[in-house]
Amino acid sequence: MGDPAGIGPEIVLKAFWDARVRRVCTPVVVGDRVLLDLLARRLGLKPLPEGSVRGGAPLDTRRVSAGVASAACGRAMVSYIEEAVRMASSKEAEAVVTAPITKEATRLAGFPYPGHTEFIARLTRTKDFLMMLGGAGRHDLKVTLVTIHVPLADVPRLVTKAAVLRALRITDAAFKRDFHIKSPRIAVAGLNPHAGEAGMFGAEEKMVIAPAVKKARAEGINATGPLPPDTVFYRAVRKAEFDCVVCMYHDQGLGPLKLLHFEDGVNATLGLPIVRTSPDHGTAYNIAWKGIASIESMVAAIRMAAAMARNRKK
Amino acid sequence: MGDPAGIGPEIVLKAFWDARVRRVCTPVVVGDRVLLDLLARRLGLKPLPEGSVRGGAPLDTRRVSAGVASAACGRAMVSYIEEAVRMASSKEAEAVVTAPITKEATRLAGFPYPGHTEFIARLTRTKDFLMMLGGAGRHDLKVTLVTIHVPLADVPRLVTKAAVLRALRITDAAFKRDFHIKSPRIAVAGLNPHAGEAGMFGAEEKMVIAPAVKKARAEGINATGPLPPDTVFYRAVRKAEFDCVVCMYHDQGLGPLKLLHFEDGVNATLGLPIVRTSPDHGTAYNIAWKGIASIESMVAAIRMAAAMARNRKK
Repeated sequence: MGDPAGIGPEIVLKAFWDARVRRVCTPVVVGDRVLLDLLARRLGLKPLPEGSVRGGAPLDTRRVSAGVASAACGRAMVSYIEEAVRMASSKEAEAVVTAPITKEATRLAGFPYPGHTEFIARLTRTKDFLMMLGGAGRHDLKVTLVTIHVPLADVPRLVTKAAVLRALRITDAAFKRDFHIKSPRIAVAGLNPHAGEAGMFGAEEKMVIAPAVKKARAEGINATGPLPPDTVFYRAVRKAEFDCVVCMYHDQGLGPLKLLHFEDGVNATLGLPIVRTSPDHGTAYNIAWKGIASIESMVAAIRMAAAMARNRKK
Repeated sequence: MGDPAGIGPEIVLKAFWDARVRRVCTPVVVGDRVLLDLLARRLGLKPLPEGSVRGGAPLDTRRVSAGVASAACGRAMVSYIEEAVRMASSKEAEAVVTAPITKEATRLAGFPYPGHTEFIARLTRTKDFLMMLGGAGRHDLKVTLVTIHVPLADVPRLVTKAAVLRALRITDAAFKRDFHIKSPRIAVAGLNPHAGEAGMFGAEEKMVIAPAVKKARAEGINATGPLPPDTVFYRAVRKAEFDCVVCMYHDQGLGPLKLLHFEDGVNATLGLPIVRTSPDHGTAYNIAWKGIASIESMVAAIRMAAAMARNRKK
């Protein structure tokens, strides 16, 4: 359910009944039954059926206001994640889809992780995980990121052979296991314009990225690159040449991705023992509890999680 | 006509007769009549009519081979640019559209400029020019670049207040004059993820870009930013919030742009006394003189140039 004070409860209520969701899974909500019923009445939404909501820590709904970060909400959202991960780890559930949380609220609750992903990695004792963003469709753009939330000036230093190789290995393994692709075609974006144009615009391609790709290929990974970062997305999506693009930094991948999947983008954590996805948006405090939040990204996240769970059983 | 050994002659022959071109202008080709006739015969294309070809330096066609860079071709393509710019400067022509040239050939001919753009700026005695790339349609994505062909590691240092302000001024003036937009809505992309997220991922937004935007706004320029670089393209195109996105570096703008306009992107030089556009591709030596080159980008470049010339007269 995510942050009670955000759009999480509303999109959970709506997505639960969505036909596109019902076709692929039987959803179970980990959240607060009292708040969900209250909000369903208030927004005129169909309430969730008996047995479909699991509680986390009890929430004093009188102390929760739409769009206000609080320690109470922080504790609640952390407990939902813990319970959902426990269910998936014990096979009670086949996948976890996390609704958005708020850093400010988790901070008030004394939560020591920068976000969902790091917390879930810790709960599942995973060291080698990787963020993927993409559309839920088989041929939609999907990107993984070698560096994420760092200043652009730090990127060249952080793009090491080890970091690129790690991203390639996790991407390859996850696309085999979670997306059931026998030999995933992985494009590796360069760092510099025209992928360095033979060293004229930077040496990282030659010194760092190419050796990582070579090593990956020697391990049997179907990696291609470093490729010019301006045309690689066109080639991946419009020409269907690649299943995933490994990007060197945040906006290299997310500019193209959000152009195509602003409304229905999915964030998946690759490399975990459990399946975990989430919608690619935040708690949207400004429109919380108003009944106007879009569920497209949440529906896509649920559908991707269901597909990943199915593929893992194949 | 561009490089005689590339796809220039073929796309000029084809675009000349294209209905979308004929509707907006009367094209005149600056190039080599002998080669154009020879190639028209060879590829079964309609030859150009009497009086529609202006010569540059005479070209010994026996010494020109498809896909081979030569000093003879280098001298020829330089002379075509000189003649075309002369025609536009003297109002014999209303705009110049340049077919692709080859750096290797111009180098062999002793040509001291890194490319077309710098050469034309020199010929027209222009100091403040700026590269724009975009689709030809009124609502297509258009981007201008503060830095272009430099290593990513150099970008943060080169994004100065003066450089951003210069880009904003040229973009604003050109969108008023060339695209006839009264108060162009200019988005300014940040440099770092989430535009720095209040300084957590970099200080350039606060220290450099925001002050430049503030100064530009004080000058009456309708600039907004710095905005998160991952969502600004979505907002510009899908939400039609902006007429142009000023980007801090090559792949920030060109990744999104080529995703939308790989086939029909146009390169325009803003800030020149003459109108100048070009297709957003190279000489494509590997398919030169084979009759299979796409003219979409050339047609879009001609249509954009014609529209810019019309707007300048308004």
